[in-house]
Amino acid sequence: MLTEDQRERLEVVLVSPRNPLNIGAVARAMANFGFARLKVVAPYAPHWQEARSAVGAEALLGAATETATLAVAVAGCTLVAGTGTLAYRKPEQRVVRLPDLGLLLRREMERGGRVGLVFGPEKHGLTREDLSYCHLLVEIPTDARQPSMNLGQAAAVCLYELSARAFAADEATKGTASSSATAAASARLELLAGVVEQTMVAADYSPAAMREANRHDLRLLLRRLGPSERDARRILGLFRRILWKLDR
Amino acid sequence: MLTEDQRERLEVVLVSPRNPLNIGAVARAMANFGFARLKVVAPYAPHWQEARSAVGAEALLGAATETATLAVAVAGCTLVAGTGTLAYRKPEQRVVRLPDLGLLLRREMERGGRVGLVFGPEKHGLTREDLSYCHLLVEIPTDARQPSMNLGQAAAVCLYELSARAFAADEATKGTASSSATAAASARLELLAGVVEQTMVAADYSPAAMREANRHDLRLLLRRLGPSERDARRILGLFRRILWKLDR
Repeated sequence: MLTEDQRERLEVVLVSPRNPLNIGAVARAMANFGFARLKVVAPYAPHWQEARSAVGAEALLGAATETATLAVAVAGCTLVAGTGTLAYRKPEQRVVRLPDLGLLLRREMERGGRVGLVFGPEKHGLTREDLSYCHLLVEIPTDARQPSMNLGQAAAVCLYELSARAFAADEATKGTASSSATAAASARLELLAGVVEQTMVAADYSPAAMREANRHDLRLLLRRLGPSERDARRILGLFRRILWKLDR
Repeated sequence: MLTEDQRERLEVVLVSPRNPLNIGAVARAMANFGFARLKVVAPYAPHWQEARSAVGAEALLGAATETATLAVAVAGCTLVAGTGTLAYRKPEQRVVRLPDLGLLLRREMERGGRVGLVFGPEKHGLTREDLSYCHLLVEIPTDARQPSMNLGQAAAVCLYELSARAFAADEATKGTASSSATAAASARLELLAGVVEQTMVAADYSPAAMREANRHDLRLLLRRLGPSERDARRILGLFRRILWKLDR
């Protein structure tokens, strides 16, 4: 869904990640949503080694760049977005809700910019100093009772928003419901209604005086159900069989 | 962002989860996005115990319900959405891309329905049998080179879409489809499927060897039709009458 150029224009930056499982989870989410460039700032060396050498580690972990500071990591970025909970601090820069971030980053990438998406350490998040390298802060709208997200999950949600939402906006508009089956034509529904009605009669479903009302209700029911052409034929086959059996 | 009523109308259902960390991650994502109802189907007992007793486990893990089968877990749901990779199988029901799912689920919840969001075991995902209890399949748009998501991350992305996207879209779409009827709950569809199946047998609809396949197809058919509670009861009444007549 992303072009190679677009993939190249987003850097995911992890500042001092601690948990190797979280590092792996971020890498996996990147691969899931088609991003390839990972930078890791001042990682805790043993855990970083463990994450990189883990069985099944993404190729992109192997290709990840390590830098000593956030300043170096985002040096080539034209727009840097910092993530984290805003519950405990007063933001000093513009705050953008995640659902609004995608298109903003996309526009930056399309005008030739390079975007950095920065995640802080698991425990404390980005420091005020870290945040000073960010053009804006991303707010993932979470419940006030449990606002703080797991690193791997926060990354997945952000990358989903960017990849499947912002960049899919074009695709979504062209031919969405192509896979849905053709609805049965009215004539088919009438045929079906006729056979069901005969079945009702054969089964003494209701007194003769009710038949007119039943026919009307049945017609409405079939349209509420709105079976596909194939399903209507299936149901017709079943009722024909039942009718044949009842008539014997 | 979600009302208490909305929180109550979504069930997250995990089928045979293995990894306690994943169970915890799903619970955390639920708490992050304001959902509270978790059901676990046939969990691997030691890992389920471990997840529940983990330090910092969410209250909702303690309150989670355990069921033996998926049928029981979703019995009260009027709309069941199954998740998983579609790369390896041909879907038998409607496929909805995640960005389009939120509003659909929201509408169902607003008309008084109850929604089930079902996740399969980590390794193999939902089986064909599991999927036959689902009205639709959710497709998370992922990169073809790495389509398969981690369980906790997939749950986070789905719940984000529902909570932060669908319910945040708010005032714009308020009160659109308020008049439509409540969908039949999964348990009602199962009851109906049972009676239709007996009718098929009584009418010698197909050879005994086909019954298993017919049952599967019937379950899918009823979910495609998606009758309202009232319509499901009407159809049930008709088939009971037919069955009674055939049995005489």
